[in-house]
Amino acid sequence: MKVTILGNNSALPAFGRHPTAQAVSVYGDIILIDCGEGTQIQMQRYGLRWRNVHHIFISHLHGDHYFGLPGLINSMSLLGRTAPLHLYAPAPLQPILESILTVADTVLCYPFYFHPLPEEGTALLVDDPSFSVTSFLVEHRIQCHGFLVERKTRGRKLLPDKCREYEIPAAYYEILKQGADYERRDGFLVKNEWVTEDGPAHKKYAYCADTLFTESFLPAIMNADTIYHECTYLEKDADKAAARFHSTASQAAKVAKMANAKQLLLGHFSSKYKDLELFREEACSIFPNAVVSTEGIAYEI
Amino acid sequence: MKVTILGNNSALPAFGRHPTAQAVSVYGDIILIDCGEGTQIQMQRYGLRWRNVHHIFISHLHGDHYFGLPGLINSMSLLGRTAPLHLYAPAPLQPILESILTVADTVLCYPFYFHPLPEEGTALLVDDPSFSVTSFLVEHRIQCHGFLVERKTRGRKLLPDKCREYEIPAAYYEILKQGADYERRDGFLVKNEWVTEDGPAHKKYAYCADTLFTESFLPAIMNADTIYHECTYLEKDADKAAARFHSTASQAAKVAKMANAKQLLLGHFSSKYKDLELFREEACSIFPNAVVSTEGIAYEI
Repeated sequence: MKVTILGNNSALPAFGRHPTAQAVSVYGDIILIDCGEGTQIQMQRYGLRWRNVHHIFISHLHGDHYFGLPGLINSMSLLGRTAPLHLYAPAPLQPILESILTVADTVLCYPFYFHPLPEEGTALLVDDPSFSVTSFLVEHRIQCHGFLVERKTRGRKLLPDKCREYEIPAAYYEILKQGADYERRDGFLVKNEWVTEDGPAHKKYAYCADTLFTESFLPAIMNADTIYHECTYLEKDADKAAARFHSTASQAAKVAKMANAKQLLLGHFSSKYKDLELFREEACSIFPNAVVSTEGIAYEI
Repeated sequence: MKVTILGNNSALPAFGRHPTAQAVSVYGDIILIDCGEGTQIQMQRYGLRWRNVHHIFISHLHGDHYFGLPGLINSMSLLGRTAPLHLYAPAPLQPILESILTVADTVLCYPFYFHPLPEEGTALLVDDPSFSVTSFLVEHRIQCHGFLVERKTRGRKLLPDKCREYEIPAAYYEILKQGADYERRDGFLVKNEWVTEDGPAHKKYAYCADTLFTESFLPAIMNADTIYHECTYLEKDADKAAARFHSTASQAAKVAKMANAKQLLLGHFSSKYKDLELFREEACSIFPNAVVSTEGIAYEI
């Protein structure tokens, strides 16, 4: 499970940094979180295929988090996509997208489902056999959501050579994945650990979109393996952060520490900062495993 | 007078080529024509300052011609712009832009004027002391406009050293620019050509947006110095071009020839073509001064 950063800047593009978008890869599926202007080109640049995207989540309706969406949706149609696409976003986006398609006299050539995000509380949005996505509220100037993406375990991983060596019929493979031993006709017991190994572990990735420093959504992100938390400002500009409903690097680190996370990715940097080293130093003094996210890097979760 | 190509591709971004946008520079002013996704970043990349833009023209409401507009408008506001901005676009764009601002709880901090383009005929949209812009209808799948940008002459150009040499008071400079001679008190006649030289000539740039091959708008672009004409396809795909209301390189060249243009810029290439040399060859066989437009290049008009 990886997250590739497609944009790590706040609203004003600067220093080659793009507005927010990121791609979470889970078992070959790409879950797109936010879709700032230029996302379709950033995906091309970093070799992420649009056709592997089936779910898009938009945290809130400030443009730097969704102005790349109409272009991506359109391009998917121009390429003749047939697979369904599910979009989860604040409700007022739906009539805007419909108007954009109407004035262009465009009908998408694939099934497109708009799922409005609930205005209150947490919600299990997707519960797929491979992963789940839950939304939670963060505290911004307008309604804004964070997302928890959980990769599910697929059970134990078969060792095909070993299975053949012990003459186990393929029909039993699913049972082996669930951890069972296998008893042969001759009474010989094949222990599960001889023919399987640990499969992919359950993983949690928490995306904490534009937000004030707050403990209000801690319950939703507790024990996440990786947290992405916005830090538009350094602590010396904490007053600006508060006034604009944003956070500082120190505050992001405090959240990661309180949530007992393993790793913190820092992002959504103000265009007033060219050098981001101070963000790393500030966060690491509170939460040592803090990383300044860089566009194009795929971070292991 | 120059035009800088910010995007020369058709709808699907490909091979590093972006959707349509171009910046026409006239006496320090930037006139933006179309504003595909990523235009604000392309402007940064090629050193074109947003604050020099006072007029934006959108040819039609297919997304590859305007999806960069909300981001640019927004960014100008974030930077604290105070100068007015005039947008000329098909009328249905106005409520879409208003909705985008409303859902973000954003009020632009500068005066923003939306001018709907007329649904029929040609129209003089801007008549500034330095330049004028006229719209004309082209023939596309939806209502679509071309634009003729004309740089006005500013009269003759003063030679300050010569003016001082002949002791001409500054109060007479405006009259000299209009071509008049100057008679000194001692009766000596200073000939205009001794103290001035030719000023910038009247120039015409015609942007022929997405269109079928047609002679219908020839009267609007006759004798243009430079024509930009779309050529989404090569002539061997003329059937595709016709079916999709686009043109071929040969057809673009025919238009330039019939219009008695001096130069033809080719653009709006389909993403099916990686190599664009065949576009040049095809067009040059009909109209020799045809150029494959390249992003980032400022073409002298």
